Amino acid sequence: MINRQWTVAEHPENELHASHFGYKEIELDSPKDGEVLLKTHYLNLAPVMRMYMMKDGGGRSPEQPLNIGDVIHGRGVAEIIESRHPDYQTGDFVHGQIGWQTHKVSTLNSAEKFVKMAPRGVPAYYGLSALGMTGYSAYCGFISRGEPKAGEAVLVSGAAGGVGSLVVQMAKALGCSPVIGIAGGPEKCALVTSLGADDVIDYKSEDVASRLSGLFPNGLDIYFDNVGGEILDASLTNLAKGARVVMCGAISEYTRKTPFALKNHGLLRRENADMRGFFVYNHAHEFDQAEEAIADWIKSGQLRALVDIEDGFEHMPAALMGLYSGKNKGKRLVRVTPGEDLIY
Amino acid sequence: MINRQWTVAEHPENELHASHFGYKEIELDSPKDGEVLLKTHYLNLAPVMRMYMMKDGGGRSPEQPLNIGDVIHGRGVAEIIESRHPDYQTGDFVHGQIGWQTHKVSTLNSAEKFVKMAPRGVPAYYGLSALGMTGYSAYCGFISRGEPKAGEAVLVSGAAGGVGSLVVQMAKALGCSPVIGIAGGPEKCALVTSLGADDVIDYKSEDVASRLSGLFPNGLDIYFDNVGGEILDASLTNLAKGARVVMCGAISEYTRKTPFALKNHGLLRRENADMRGFFVYNHAHEFDQAEEAIADWIKSGQLRALVDIEDGFEHMPAALMGLYSGKNKGKRLVRVTPGEDLIY
Repeated sequence: MINRQWTVAEHPENELHASHFGYKEIELDSPKDGEVLLKTHYLNLAPVMRMYMMKDGGGRSPEQPLNIGDVIHGRGVAEIIESRHPDYQTGDFVHGQIGWQTHKVSTLNSAEKFVKMAPRGVPAYYGLSALGMTGYSAYCGFISRGEPKAGEAVLVSGAAGGVGSLVVQMAKALGCSPVIGIAGGPEKCALVTSLGADDVIDYKSEDVASRLSGLFPNGLDIYFDNVGGEILDASLTNLAKGARVVMCGAISEYTRKTPFALKNHGLLRRENADMRGFFVYNHAHEFDQAEEAIADWIKSGQLRALVDIEDGFEHMPAALMGLYSGKNKGKRLVRVTPGEDLIY
Repeated sequence: MINRQWTVAEHPENELHASHFGYKEIELDSPKDGEVLLKTHYLNLAPVMRMYMMKDGGGRSPEQPLNIGDVIHGRGVAEIIESRHPDYQTGDFVHGQIGWQTHKVSTLNSAEKFVKMAPRGVPAYYGLSALGMTGYSAYCGFISRGEPKAGEAVLVSGAAGGVGSLVVQMAKALGCSPVIGIAGGPEKCALVTSLGADDVIDYKSEDVASRLSGLFPNGLDIYFDNVGGEILDASLTNLAKGARVVMCGAISEYTRKTPFALKNHGLLRRENADMRGFFVYNHAHEFDQAEEAIADWIKSGQLRALVDIEDGFEHMPAALMGLYSGKNKGKRLVRVTPGEDLIY
C-alpha cells in the first residue's frame, strides 16, 4: 500500500511558495491490533496551515510545530478500509487529524481528534464543512462565545468563507437583525446576499469604517471576526453597549511577520464590551450539541454548506496558496480522488 | 456666598501644567424650590481628569467635553447646608458630580450621578473611596466583569492605587490564590503586601513579563488592569484557559497622543480568553449591592480604604498632576478645608 504525502520542505517566513512543500510516497504497514487503516477522501484547507508550517509554528500555532520533512497538519474525511479496532468497522467514516496524506494507520485516539461520523445521507464532505470543525467553529464561536439574542445587530467578516457563511445563516435563523457580511469582490458579496445577509460590505472597494457607521447607527452587538487586522480595529469604533467581538480567525494577519498593532481596544471600556478569544478545540464538550443543532438546520433548509472543491491530491499546495489571495467561496476542500461525491 | 472654582484655562495636549488650570471666585445664588446648596468637603482626583480637560475630551472622554472656562469635572463628598428639596435635609451627605468647586446649587438629578450616603460612622471621605465610585469600580469591575472564583490566580496592576488596593483585598477575601499586585517602588510594594497580596511586582525595577511567568506557572485567571499599555500587553502572553482581563483603567496611556498599539491580543484565541471593557457607570444597577457588600467587608475587618489626602482646595491642580507621576498611595483626595476628618 503506497501512501502519498505532502511535507514541509522549507519553513515559510511570510508568503507561501511551491518550494515550501515537499512530496513523497512511502510504503504503509498494515494495521495492528487496535488500529485502523484510513483512506482519505477529502482534505481541509485553512489559513492557519501556513502558521503550522512556519519555524516553531510561528510561535503562535495551536498545533505541534512541524519540522522539515514532517507531514503537514490537516483534517480530513476518511473511510475505514481495514479495521482491527473494536469500535470501528470497515465502511465507517471519520473526520479528524489525518494530515496531508492519502492514507493513515491510526488508533483513532483523542490526540488526533477523530470524530466518528453519523450517516445522514448527505455528501461525505460535510464532515469537513457544516458537520465538522467548520460547523462546530461557527456554532460554538457564535452561540457560546457570541451569545446572540434575537434582534441583535451582527457583523460577520469572511462571510463568504467556510465558517463565516455558516455564521451568517445561523444569525438569520436565530432572528438577529440586521445581519451584515463583509467579503471581497462582487461575486462573493452576491453569494453572501444569497445566504440571507441583509447587506454586504465589499472590503475591496468600500471604506469599511464608514459603511459600518451607516449600517449600525446604534452600534454592533456582535462582531464575528474571521480576518483580524484593520477590520477588527474598525469594528471597535462602532460597538453597542455590552458588545461581543468573537475572535475566531485572523486571515489578514497570518502572513505578517509581526503581529498587527491594535489601536482601538481602549474603546471596549466605555461600552463594557468584550473581545473574546475563540479556538474550537476548547469547546470539544459542545461538539455533539453543535452537530445536532446544525443537522436540524440543514434538514429544515435553514442552513447549507458552501464548499469550494478542488480535485486531486496533487493540487493541495496550490489550493492552500489560493486561500490567502481570497479566491475561495465557502469552505475550500480538496477531493483526493477526482470523481463523484460520496454520500454518507 | 462665594464659590471658588477651578476651570479649564487651556486644553492640555499631553502632560498637564499649571497653565492649563484657571481659578475664579463667583457669587452663588440661593437654592430655589427643588434645589439644595452643597458644601464640598472632599474632592476626588482621577487619571481620567486629564482626558476631561483635553480638547473634545480627547475624543474618548466618558464625560461631556469641557470648553475653556468650564469647571473641571470631578466627584466630591458634600454636605447639604440648605435644602429646598423634599428628599434631602440639612446635614445629609451625598457624593456625586460636584466639579472642582467649593459649593454647588443642585437639583441632585440623576445626570449628576448623586448618591445619598448612608450614615455608617466612618470617615465621610469613604464616599469617595471604598463606599463610593472607587469601591463600586473595584466591586463591579472585579465581581461582575472578572467573575472570580476561589482558588483562581489574580493579578492587579495599580495595586497601591484607589481601585487596585480594594481589588487586592476583595480577591483575598474571596479566596483567590495567588493574588499578585503590581506597583512602582519599594514603598508602594510594601503597602500592597500589607493589604494581603501574596507577592508584588515592582514595575519600576523588575521585568514584568519574566516575573509573570515565574509567579503564574499555570497562567493568569484574572488580570485586573488599571494601567493599560505595556503591562496589559505583557499580561496577554501569560493567560490561563478562559482568562478574563478586566480593562478598568489605562493610566499609562492617558498622557499619550496616540493610542497604545497592542500586539498580543491574538493570544486570546488559543486560550478562549476575554478582554472585557469596564466603565463603572454602566453598572449603576449594581451600586446598592456593591455598597452593602463593601460595608460588610469593612465591618468584618477584611477591607480598608487606602487614601492619600492632600489639604486645601488651592492644591487641586498640583494634586492631580502628582497622580501621573505615580506619587499617590491609595485613592488621592483633596480635603477642601484643612482640619479634622468628618465622621458620617
